[in-house]
Amino acid sequence: MSDPLAWSLGRAAQAIRDREISSFELTEAALERAHATQPSLNAFIEIEDETALAAAAAADEALAAGVAMGPLHGVPLAHKDMYDRKGRVTGCGSKIRKDHVAATTATVIARLDAAGQIHLGRLNMSEFAVGPTGFNAHHGRACNPLDPARITGGSSSGSGAAMASGSAFAALGSDTGGSIRIPAACCGIVGIKPTQGRVSRHGAMPLSASQDCIGPLTRTVADAELVLSLIAGADPLDPASIDAPPVERAPTVAALRIGVVRQGFFADGLDPEVAGSIVEATRILERAGASIIEAKLPPMEDVIELANLVAMSEGAAIHLDWLRQRPQEYGEQVRARLVQALGTAAPVYLRALQLRATLLARTLAETFASCDALLVPTMPTLPPISADVEVGASEAMTRVLVGLSKFTRPFSFLGLPALSVPMPATAAGLRPSAQLVAGPWQEGLLFTLGDALEREASGRSD
Amino acid sequence: MSDPLAWSLGRAAQAIRDREISSFELTEAALERAHATQPSLNAFIEIEDETALAAAAAADEALAAGVAMGPLHGVPLAHKDMYDRKGRVTGCGSKIRKDHVAATTATVIARLDAAGQIHLGRLNMSEFAVGPTGFNAHHGRACNPLDPARITGGSSSGSGAAMASGSAFAALGSDTGGSIRIPAACCGIVGIKPTQGRVSRHGAMPLSASQDCIGPLTRTVADAELVLSLIAGADPLDPASIDAPPVERAPTVAALRIGVVRQGFFADGLDPEVAGSIVEATRILERAGASIIEAKLPPMEDVIELANLVAMSEGAAIHLDWLRQRPQEYGEQVRARLVQALGTAAPVYLRALQLRATLLARTLAETFASCDALLVPTMPTLPPISADVEVGASEAMTRVLVGLSKFTRPFSFLGLPALSVPMPATAAGLRPSAQLVAGPWQEGLLFTLGDALEREASGRSD
Repeated sequence: MSDPLAWSLGRAAQAIRDREISSFELTEAALERAHATQPSLNAFIEIEDETALAAAAAADEALAAGVAMGPLHGVPLAHKDMYDRKGRVTGCGSKIRKDHVAATTATVIARLDAAGQIHLGRLNMSEFAVGPTGFNAHHGRACNPLDPARITGGSSSGSGAAMASGSAFAALGSDTGGSIRIPAACCGIVGIKPTQGRVSRHGAMPLSASQDCIGPLTRTVADAELVLSLIAGADPLDPASIDAPPVERAPTVAALRIGVVRQGFFADGLDPEVAGSIVEATRILERAGASIIEAKLPPMEDVIELANLVAMSEGAAIHLDWLRQRPQEYGEQVRARLVQALGTAAPVYLRALQLRATLLARTLAETFASCDALLVPTMPTLPPISADVEVGASEAMTRVLVGLSKFTRPFSFLGLPALSVPMPATAAGLRPSAQLVAGPWQEGLLFTLGDALEREASGRSD
Repeated sequence: MSDPLAWSLGRAAQAIRDREISSFELTEAALERAHATQPSLNAFIEIEDETALAAAAAADEALAAGVAMGPLHGVPLAHKDMYDRKGRVTGCGSKIRKDHVAATTATVIARLDAAGQIHLGRLNMSEFAVGPTGFNAHHGRACNPLDPARITGGSSSGSGAAMASGSAFAALGSDTGGSIRIPAACCGIVGIKPTQGRVSRHGAMPLSASQDCIGPLTRTVADAELVLSLIAGADPLDPASIDAPPVERAPTVAALRIGVVRQGFFADGLDPEVAGSIVEATRILERAGASIIEAKLPPMEDVIELANLVAMSEGAAIHLDWLRQRPQEYGEQVRARLVQALGTAAPVYLRALQLRATLLARTLAETFASCDALLVPTMPTLPPISADVEVGASEAMTRVLVGLSKFTRPFSFLGLPALSVPMPATAAGLRPSAQLVAGPWQEGLLFTLGDALEREASGRSD
């Protein structure tokens, strides 16, 4: 038997259903891996051995009795520490909320529970989901399994580390400016930020109402699709969730038009390995029959700043009382970024929202009228060395942090779905990441394309 | 024949249908009245004699031919100068937009056109609908037909003056913090601010997306109901318009529970005539069989400031470019109020929106769980002498202006429907105004109650 902890989520679920392995064995193995890697990776804030094993044993009993088998029956998952589970702590990677016991259960958690998941524990994250490096002043940073000296990316840092180290079979993250896609890119795994409104945010820690999206980090594209299909769909408990068309793959890559960018914002200043991986991704899709065209894009330079301004203004509104009453309990970088937003005038914030509507209309009319998906890097560079981006609250803060998220923020601002897929490893074992972006509700098309990239990048034959 | 210009809208429409009077005769009479009163009242920014008479003649021809008779067929109306009519000027009571030719037609105008209205002209208003006194630095203030030394109220100042002087049979206004209800109260007529989302705002000058509402000023409650029924309803051109239940009257006043306020925010510091009129309104409704209860209200003191902060922030966002490039073209008071909002931090604005949601939930649970409608004054005082509220951009500005709208702003902030009905005249011939407020979409109930008040207040017997 191959190492079960290297299995995909789909393979693990099938193995349990086929009694190739028990939920208890798989959960025990995952917990062992979590404990073994915790000293070096710090992926978890809490590992829940006892309740996980009890739930796994119950899953095995249910299987033996032939009842209650959802598509994730008995498979151990772990999620970013920001989704409420009634009666348990949701700490949000913070000091302020570290003992906060949830009164309700997040809709995404309830839906995965109904599908049969086992909870392994709570994953590390940037404090209050603010920050793309994964730095956490209270819990320490999670380290990158591909190279522990490098950042995992954030804010879903533990989700990236746990997936890349084989401690879980899927992990929810959240993405306001890249917080799913950046750790996926850093850790060599798959991550999807769905269309704004596709997934209910009830019971999830809020940061930015206009940009927060929940989605999975997984080891395969098919796993991301599976988890998204389970958590997607309108929810009466979240008025911002939308009853959208279901996620459906395109039948083939062949007729699809892929927009690529050969100069300007998404092409300039790339690490050579990143540039090379996008050329390779383009070739793969072209060989699979896609038409490659030069994408027309509205100017994106200002968008990053607008997106940051909107997200941090909304975040500061949520944090206003704590910023006044408990400022010393924030890490200095998170506090500095939220406090900075207190200087944004309301009319300027509102104007940014107006510009977003205009920009979205232009992007749909100019960009997605002539192509079905964009292919751009997830990050301009390979994952940086942690020490190089430990900028604290210095003057370099905004430049460095926003630089990491420059390719992900525009699509957060526009509310468009974006899928990050790891490309073949560099000599140093890192995985540059291709980002596929489509129009609203077109996640299925992204999975079709992502699957084609993955098949070639991993040498998978199917 | 009684003076046709004193007729209600409903009576005028019926008279045309019955050929008791022609549209041409009625329009000619209205235009004469408009010209005769313009020097003293300044209700109009433009009187459109030629096109009005041509349209009236065409309406008479259509009637003779038995075609195209909407419920307002041939009846002359005039509207606040902020609703687009394709190819004509929409000046917004401003200097900046005074020659702006509209490229489209506002949905409310298109709907009243389809109903058969004749346009008499464009009515005076506070510049860009900012300001509750009716002061206008560019066009001069409109004067109150009940006492030209007193304010008409604003921002729908010309709508109030035209209706009270008999120059039109209905006039659209707009209400962001009281701009329909305050001129209705000052001028002794009826005004309704519908539920937020009830009426499309496509083609109407925006001020505050979260609080702008369009509604009519009329001489009778039934007329307000007629106009609202014609302009209400979801509109694909305004995504914020809502497909709500239609306006339906309650079958009877008996069985309705009316919440009154005998101390605190809505009862303290009233002019004696205003206090007396609310006591009288309470008696009328009680005699008609309603139950009178002491209303429970969440604290409203802070709401006025929050409502003002939200509206002016949204207004300043819309005006941002002009405030930078053409500041000298604003009147000093309007400029000062918009510029003041540039000092509001975005997180504070967003927090105010959060508080609004909380306050609305509390109001529905605490107030409207135990009563069907609230009965409070529209204004705390009789209409002030104009000179007393000419505060320009002085330090007294916010206090004086917000003081005038203290009873109307809370329901703008909460998005609730509110109907202003004139009570019997004081010795000086002024009409204190009763404000009836209900839960969302309950305008019909307000019309039932307002009709009962009007019947007694006007000595009408039917």
